Amino acid sequence: MALVVQKYGGTSVDNLAKIENVAMRVIKAKEAGNQVVVVLSAMAGETDRLINLAHQITDSPDEREYDALISTGEQVTVSLLAIMLNKMGYPARSFLGFQVKILTDGAYKQARIVNIDTMAIKNELKNGVIVIIAGFQGVDSDNNITTLGRGGSDTSAVALSAALHADVCDIYTDVDGVYTTDPNICSKARRLSKITYDEMLEMAMLGAKVLQPRSVEMAKKYQVPLYIRSSFTDEGGTLVTKEDSAMEREVVSGVTYDRDQAKITVVHVPDRPGIAARLFTPLAEHHIVVDMIIQNASVEGFTDLTFTVSRKDIKEATRLVEEAGKDIGAAKVEVDENVAKISIVGVGMVSHSGVAAKMFATLAHEGINILMISTSDIKISCVVQAKYTELAVMVLHDTFELDKRS
Amino acid sequence: MALVVQKYGGTSVDNLAKIENVAMRVIKAKEAGNQVVVVLSAMAGETDRLINLAHQITDSPDEREYDALISTGEQVTVSLLAIMLNKMGYPARSFLGFQVKILTDGAYKQARIVNIDTMAIKNELKNGVIVIIAGFQGVDSDNNITTLGRGGSDTSAVALSAALHADVCDIYTDVDGVYTTDPNICSKARRLSKITYDEMLEMAMLGAKVLQPRSVEMAKKYQVPLYIRSSFTDEGGTLVTKEDSAMEREVVSGVTYDRDQAKITVVHVPDRPGIAARLFTPLAEHHIVVDMIIQNASVEGFTDLTFTVSRKDIKEATRLVEEAGKDIGAAKVEVDENVAKISIVGVGMVSHSGVAAKMFATLAHEGINILMISTSDIKISCVVQAKYTELAVMVLHDTFELDKRS
Repeated sequence: MALVVQKYGGTSVDNLAKIENVAMRVIKAKEAGNQVVVVLSAMAGETDRLINLAHQITDSPDEREYDALISTGEQVTVSLLAIMLNKMGYPARSFLGFQVKILTDGAYKQARIVNIDTMAIKNELKNGVIVIIAGFQGVDSDNNITTLGRGGSDTSAVALSAALHADVCDIYTDVDGVYTTDPNICSKARRLSKITYDEMLEMAMLGAKVLQPRSVEMAKKYQVPLYIRSSFTDEGGTLVTKEDSAMEREVVSGVTYDRDQAKITVVHVPDRPGIAARLFTPLAEHHIVVDMIIQNASVEGFTDLTFTVSRKDIKEATRLVEEAGKDIGAAKVEVDENVAKISIVGVGMVSHSGVAAKMFATLAHEGINILMISTSDIKISCVVQAKYTELAVMVLHDTFELDKRS
Repeated sequence: MALVVQKYGGTSVDNLAKIENVAMRVIKAKEAGNQVVVVLSAMAGETDRLINLAHQITDSPDEREYDALISTGEQVTVSLLAIMLNKMGYPARSFLGFQVKILTDGAYKQARIVNIDTMAIKNELKNGVIVIIAGFQGVDSDNNITTLGRGGSDTSAVALSAALHADVCDIYTDVDGVYTTDPNICSKARRLSKITYDEMLEMAMLGAKVLQPRSVEMAKKYQVPLYIRSSFTDEGGTLVTKEDSAMEREVVSGVTYDRDQAKITVVHVPDRPGIAARLFTPLAEHHIVVDMIIQNASVEGFTDLTFTVSRKDIKEATRLVEEAGKDIGAAKVEVDENVAKISIVGVGMVSHSGVAAKMFATLAHEGINILMISTSDIKISCVVQAKYTELAVMVLHDTFELDKRS
């Protein structure tokens, strides 16, 4: 008998007909002889509705109360599914974070799971009961409700899979798997049947919205096999797993893009120790995440520093950097909000030379100027002007023959 | 320093503007030097919306899951009020049933409070924090969420007042107190400034919807002074308290009516031991509440039995009684759904003779036939044809000069 964890996202449970569809899938897994644990998100739009209520009151709602508020959506879906399954003759029981209990640290809005007590769940499974768990939520050691951040239900599902030693963790969503790139931009995009944790992690961080990056990290750490599937079809699916020697080592697995980028350049900065710290510490203190950072070669004791932040942070970041720039004697601060980041991802890259050169040549051939470059073992990212986003994705998809992947 | 418990009903918190109004009232009590505990209902209509979702799935939803579902509405209002108060500069903290903890028995949908752990609340109050508690909910000894039944937030507030030895429990609602009768029917209705627990209990049970009867019972048991007030005005209010020797002993305090009545008569029943048990046991087994029961004097070994039930139960009750009637050899079963119960309530009644006679004469004078009568120390109820409801209320209100009460 296998233990299967199934996670369903908000678009899979946003009305009773869809919850019934979920119930049918759960029953199918149960009838196949599995023990089944289901993790649910809130109905699509519900969490945003609650966030909006809080933000109508204030821009910075008390974080403890904010988490108590926005965790209610999952309580509704898990109990509705339990009512549905019980009515269909399949004993089912819902669990909230405090009932499991899913213990987290005390970092409201982005808590990390510290421990999961599996006893109650295992007892129910032993008795043939389908266990339904509210995603996205936990409690800290004082029983305050915490939430795990955007997409946190993915993390709930993976953490439960790890704690229960599940045989597979099915992530049901509204797409039927992970694609070589966004099919909305590139009609030649192909679904990948298999992808490594590292590739999935890069793609998740680079803007493919299929999974919360932290859930992929955790799946990798505990070697939880993830299966990304659509809740509306039995076809397709992408298995996210560890690198397999038998697995064909494709050079490039996918092309991703991220339009949520803005570029700041601090011009003519004296090149001496402590300057970078002076610039970036205020940003960190204001919880502004800096993505790429490039420092030009120093000329006559001066350099330029360029970095990117999320567009929503650009105003505050500019203000902070202008202040710091004055202190350190920078000539000026330049801002460009019309940029995008285009990346290629692939585990094979590490053992193939010339991948970066091929990427740069492809973009150059189309007259796309590269503004910034950042590389890792399994990805290369280029910041380009935003208007070239679609073009860059399509020509890179062609160059690396991703339409021939499967 | 006094400890004040304030309870706000669903119509007082059904949008952010009204929640802000509640916040202002809470702050006023706090600024007056009190320790303040607030108990909230869900936004008006929210619990019904959730109940409706469950009933779209099945007529008999799993009760554990049903309670988990319908308890989410209060979690939303308590966290919104806490966000509001914190933003206004008043430290506030919300508590759910499991966080307090409010321990109940395991009777889902109508659980009874067994114990309230006041430690966490007292700690917060000591630190000057406003404590906001989700009404209507608790947890059983296995941490399953339970709810206290319709109007259960009143019971939450009274139970918390008793456990905390509160100086007063303010019940804020959309009316400004308890009236001598329904002002919608009788324009001469007057607000009562004071009423005894017993009178309030009778009036609550007889159809005045201001308070859940169980909350009044509990207030009486623990001598919690209740103050019924409107959240929309500072005027008015009714104090529900123990009988006071200084309190004017009015003969009659109020006239109530209940249209949710249906009458069943079992005709020509052999008058021998065990007959009543044979008729009423099946009803009890089907959770049908029988209100008034009248047995005629026996004539030649036969009698008629008449009783009332809620209109929603009339079909099932009729079926059960017809079955039992056949077994015991009754001649026939008659049903009348067009009846209503009119009652007068007052603690002074016990020491005044002639109150019942005056009531009967008043109704007779208007040509209203009395179908059934039931009395207690402090109330007299008559079942009459439903079409006479308004007339009966108005003439009794006049006869007992309730327009001169205050």
